[in-house]
Amino acid sequence: MPDPIFVTDPRHAGLARDLYAVVRDLPLISPHGHVDPALLADDEPFPDPARLLIVPDHYVTRMLLSQGIPPDRLGVPRRDGGPVETDPRTIWRLLAANWHLFRGTPSRLWLEQTFRTVFGVDTPFSKDTADEVYDAIAARLAEPDFRPRALFERFRIEVLATTESPTDELPHHAKLAADGWGGRVISTFRPDDVVDLDRDDWAGNVARMGELAGEDCSSYGGYLSALRRRREAFIEAGTTSSDHGHPTARTVALEPADAARIFERGLRGEASAADAETFRGHMILEFARMSIDDGLVMQLHPGASRDHNRALFAAHGRDVGGDIPQATDYVHALAPLLDAYGMEPRLRIVLYTLDETAFSRELAPLAGGYPALFLGAPWWFLDTPDAMRRFREAVTDSAGFYNTAGFVDDTRAFCSIPVRHDVARRVDAAYLASLVVQDRLPFAEAAETIADLAYHLPKRIFRLENA
Amino acid sequence: MPDPIFVTDPRHAGLARDLYAVVRDLPLISPHGHVDPALLADDEPFPDPARLLIVPDHYVTRMLLSQGIPPDRLGVPRRDGGPVETDPRTIWRLLAANWHLFRGTPSRLWLEQTFRTVFGVDTPFSKDTADEVYDAIAARLAEPDFRPRALFERFRIEVLATTESPTDELPHHAKLAADGWGGRVISTFRPDDVVDLDRDDWAGNVARMGELAGEDCSSYGGYLSALRRRREAFIEAGTTSSDHGHPTARTVALEPADAARIFERGLRGEASAADAETFRGHMILEFARMSIDDGLVMQLHPGASRDHNRALFAAHGRDVGGDIPQATDYVHALAPLLDAYGMEPRLRIVLYTLDETAFSRELAPLAGGYPALFLGAPWWFLDTPDAMRRFREAVTDSAGFYNTAGFVDDTRAFCSIPVRHDVARRVDAAYLASLVVQDRLPFAEAAETIADLAYHLPKRIFRLENA
Amino acid sequence: MPDPIFVTDPRHAGLARDLYAVVRDLPLISPHGHVDPALLADDEPFPDPARLLIVPDHYVTRMLLSQGIPPDRLGVPRRDGGPVETDPRTIWRLLAANWHLFRGTPSRLWLEQTFRTVFGVDTPFSKDTADEVYDAIAARLAEPDFRPRALFERFRIEVLATTESPTDELPHHAKLAADGWGGRVISTFRPDDVVDLDRDDWAGNVARMGELAGEDCSSYGGYLSALRRRREAFIEAGTTSSDHGHPTARTVALEPADAARIFERGLRGEASAADAETFRGHMILEFARMSIDDGLVMQLHPGASRDHNRALFAAHGRDVGGDIPQATDYVHALAPLLDAYGMEPRLRIVLYTLDETAFSRELAPLAGGYPALFLGAPWWFLDTPDAMRRFREAVTDSAGFYNTAGFVDDTRAFCSIPVRHDVARRVDAAYLASLVVQDRLPFAEAAETIADLAYHLPKRIFRLENA
Repeated sequence: MPDPIFVTDPRHAGLARDLYAVVRDLPLISPHGHVDPALLADDEPFPDPARLLIVPDHYVTRMLLSQGIPPDRLGVPRRDGGPVETDPRTIWRLLAANWHLFRGTPSRLWLEQTFRTVFGVDTPFSKDTADEVYDAIAARLAEPDFRPRALFERFRIEVLATTESPTDELPHHAKLAADGWGGRVISTFRPDDVVDLDRDDWAGNVARMGELAGEDCSSYGGYLSALRRRREAFIEAGTTSSDHGHPTARTVALEPADAARIFERGLRGEASAADAETFRGHMILEFARMSIDDGLVMQLHPGASRDHNRALFAAHGRDVGGDIPQATDYVHALAPLLDAYGMEPRLRIVLYTLDETAFSRELAPLAGGYPALFLGAPWWFLDTPDAMRRFREAVTDSAGFYNTAGFVDDTRAFCSIPVRHDVARRVDAAYLASLVVQDRLPFAEAAETIADLAYHLPKRIFRLENA
Repeated sequence: MPDPIFVTDPRHAGLARDLYAVVRDLPLISPHGHVDPALLADDEPFPDPARLLIVPDHYVTRMLLSQGIPPDRLGVPRRDGGPVETDPRTIWRLLAANWHLFRGTPSRLWLEQTFRTVFGVDTPFSKDTADEVYDAIAARLAEPDFRPRALFERFRIEVLATTESPTDELPHHAKLAADGWGGRVISTFRPDDVVDLDRDDWAGNVARMGELAGEDCSSYGGYLSALRRRREAFIEAGTTSSDHGHPTARTVALEPADAARIFERGLRGEASAADAETFRGHMILEFARMSIDDGLVMQLHPGASRDHNRALFAAHGRDVGGDIPQATDYVHALAPLLDAYGMEPRLRIVLYTLDETAFSRELAPLAGGYPALFLGAPWWFLDTPDAMRRFREAVTDSAGFYNTAGFVDDTRAFCSIPVRHDVARRVDAAYLASLVVQDRLPFAEAAETIADLAYHLPKRIFRLENA
Repeated sequence: MPDPIFVTDPRHAGLARDLYAVVRDLPLISPHGHVDPALLADDEPFPDPARLLIVPDHYVTRMLLSQGIPPDRLGVPRRDGGPVETDPRTIWRLLAANWHLFRGTPSRLWLEQTFRTVFGVDTPFSKDTADEVYDAIAARLAEPDFRPRALFERFRIEVLATTESPTDELPHHAKLAADGWGGRVISTFRPDDVVDLDRDDWAGNVARMGELAGEDCSSYGGYLSALRRRREAFIEAGTTSSDHGHPTARTVALEPADAARIFERGLRGEASAADAETFRGHMILEFARMSIDDGLVMQLHPGASRDHNRALFAAHGRDVGGDIPQATDYVHALAPLLDAYGMEPRLRIVLYTLDETAFSRELAPLAGGYPALFLGAPWWFLDTPDAMRRFREAVTDSAGFYNTAGFVDDTRAFCSIPVRHDVARRVDAAYLASLVVQDRLPFAEAAETIADLAYHLPKRIFRLENA
């Protein structure tokens, strides 16, 4: 798998390679992801290959689960603290024995490229070579050049955004800022756990946020003030964007008094599911108002049916591969937000989807018609060579390239970051080359465009230009 | 951009060019569009390049708006009569300075091809060449060969349909018929503004229609009679089809007395939104009955959320780029219509969509199963090289080619008509060539098919065979 | 049309042919279809070409209907016993005269390949050659080598599943088992007509099932027992799977007492449409419980709006081309089933769709996350070269290859079986070759995969390994 370019025709492939060469070595802008900041703050060596590359990767563990291999056998911790596999080599061999399941998947592409380009292991991975690959990677992990900060520099990461709750004091970011290393690691302000009344821990989270902010969150006014204080604290620590992950794209324009009443029902433990949905939709408008004031870019990513696999959730908790996309309406759901602030020049909204049917029907027309809106990269189930191609083919007609926000890796797998960006750059090269080969775009403009997509656009749209 | 064929592989491209050559010079059939008939009736020289090519093109102005350039700066008139940019060269330069926004879009393709093939300007358009291109086009516009009727003939337009309301007396069409020029310019009967109870001007429009028809529209019976009279008048003036643009595809089989009650509530200003939706759905069946009598081909184009951008509507009114597609159900919505008249041999319905997810799931199976139904061309947000290819790939399996109705340019931009048809012919050539190169269709049959798609089918389906 | 490979680029086509060669001659596994078992039990010569290839093929008759040719003129029997065309040559010529309607459709591909590869007729079919082709096929049909059992063997069918109701005593399967021929022809247990309270014949069917099972179906408990007895009888006769064709994918977890109350309302003729939908959804869970006990693989195929063309249904009944797909939700609809049994290792569910928008959004994520779920082949309106390619492109990312269940021909057209499998194998060869040519999969793994898809996977997933 040395050098995939996602193109079949030789002339097309040649042009794609020429365009890819323009961006291959550009620095990485990673404005949305889930790397643990402690990793870089502490700069400890990574553990073994399995705990680094398999155990935390829910793309990998869910595929194995789908064929009957429970996460316990892969070392994924249980909520009840019950026993799970602890031997990394056993876990590694289990993946290798089932490697055929990953044929044609992005997981295979990312892992193989990670082995090769990050760890320099060219041996094709298989059941027979499992130990050889394991040993080679394990040996690398013991070297100083494979510590997190060294890799960060080798990966040419110009900025890495992690994701934290308003209840987080950002100690790791503080340590990173204080110790003079110089790598730019910032947080993204993600308030879902203080917004979503449906969560068991909502009231506790709100109280905790109030403490950190020095505001009395027993009133709705105090709650809004606390959110503003925490945004200020995040901004002070480098944050340039917020992130909002709701089940739907619904937005709601409530009167403050009505919002306050729902908030109070929430504190009394009396909020209904409808209250929670209304309040989430209302808070999107509230956050838009805050963003117009403080400049944070808003990321909206609706459309996941969270913890659909209840047995998996019961055993292993959130974010282990049990979420499933659902059909998502944007055109009606976003109308209240766009009526209010869609033409606002200071507001910037980056919109994601898990429902690719919305690409040409709703998302491209909306982003191609409202100044505040930009389209986020295809992600999660859609950050694959084929889906990223379909994204460009479906949205360019109505949104062009410059209403799209550039690639986000959205990953907690630190070592996969360069590979994921590399795949996205190759896919954009293939798409732009198809325009060139079809006489729809001169090569020079395609070259300028791919550099914008890979580097300049995300940097500008996520307001990362000033360090 | 001399000669795009929308194909990458050389052998495939060669076959596509051979098929394209079959239809390149066939006359244009334009059975659905929005050209102002006064243009051809008066045959005055076009104004400047900006007022011809930018100001009225909402594909262009909405893209610029999406990047923060308000329509005022592009000369788009305001409803309040407030000041907007009036210097055409300033508007032209503003487009040129933002030309990169249009990379990969159909607007770029259409404009570049218009510059080149209509105006003979080969200079690549850019910020640096803006004035040169402007001056060259302006010079052409002053020549007699670039007046509307001369272009109509040069474009080989065999028939051009404009779109008018039943309240229109068709004075321009009358002038065209009377003055002996000979170009065939007909109207399409579009009754939305006398059907849609939601419109502020509905009652006034109905009254106006009654006057023109010599019918008393204070009763539902008189209203239907007036519609029939106006259809007769349009047919007398050459009209062969009607056009119905509703938010949804809903059709409703009402008893006449129930329809009359809603109509009367409408006249009293008491109709609800539900009344309006029911009445629109009912009138589709009523118009189907009229079509069975008088032979007008019915065009249905549901699926736009009109004036979604409320601020844009408030400032500049309708049809300036603020409509957004929405998910559209056909299978249940059309059942009442198809139950009643789907097997009717005299009825012909051409069905459009803005929701491409319906292509393979609903539209092709419906058109491939009911004699009355034909699929309209992919249009508006979907009349692009990639979307037209997806249309063929998705509908041919279940509907074949002969349940599709041929290309419609749907444009108010007169000078873009030949270019739009040309792009559609190139896309069909590419698709048919893919069948040939894959051994799925002999070349001779592909050649016959492309001529049918480009010319014979739309002429037959829109009942344009008799002049 | 000698050898289509569904690929344009020559290098890609070469690899596709190499992969196709791996599977071209593998035996056929046909685990889901609608061939009449009497055909093989009686082994009589087929009638004429028209009654064999046109009259029963609703893909063909619906396309002709869509252009105004009623099924009566094609010999399709009327429910009222009224006269229909009886001369096979007249029917055959009518198809030939309208052969252009089928350009680009799978029907054309299947019929042409059937003429060529099954009957050895190489003459291109057309209006001019209609009689020549008819006579050649008619001559073959008179030969002993073209009797059903001889073709079954020539087609290398290793197992053929037909589809029967619990009210069927399986006499033809019994005859086949008894007479020592040796071809493996099994039934699929399809209980829709004893589950769907909406059917006029439901109560009668339930009573009949009770008689066959020796159970008293006047109670809900007796009804469940009868279903279990009939499953046992089918299993005894070789059945390995059940099939459930509901309008929606809705599943419902009812208490037994609530299910019993609905059942009783059904017997009293008092069940509402909502009752029927709830009961269908509940029975899916009931059948899942039975499958966990007895091992039948469950096939679920929701999403058809049955008998949408009411006039066609009134004249000719069910299954003559009047069904239309509808948008189908899986993520919420299947949640009760998957909550209860999605992690159950003994359960195996094969899930189909007519709504391709669910491929990447719902079906691949579900199948890639639940051990019990496998994706059925794209079928009915989607078993075409382009749609099968889109299926692989959309589902492989999240589900890989090994959560898909292999091709099913789903046909009542016995002579088209080898051609349909052949097309699917060619499409998979083209898709896998695209991965090889893009450096995403080594050729050797692609070759192993295509053999799995064509033969080993369906055999294993449908539990056909033990004869």
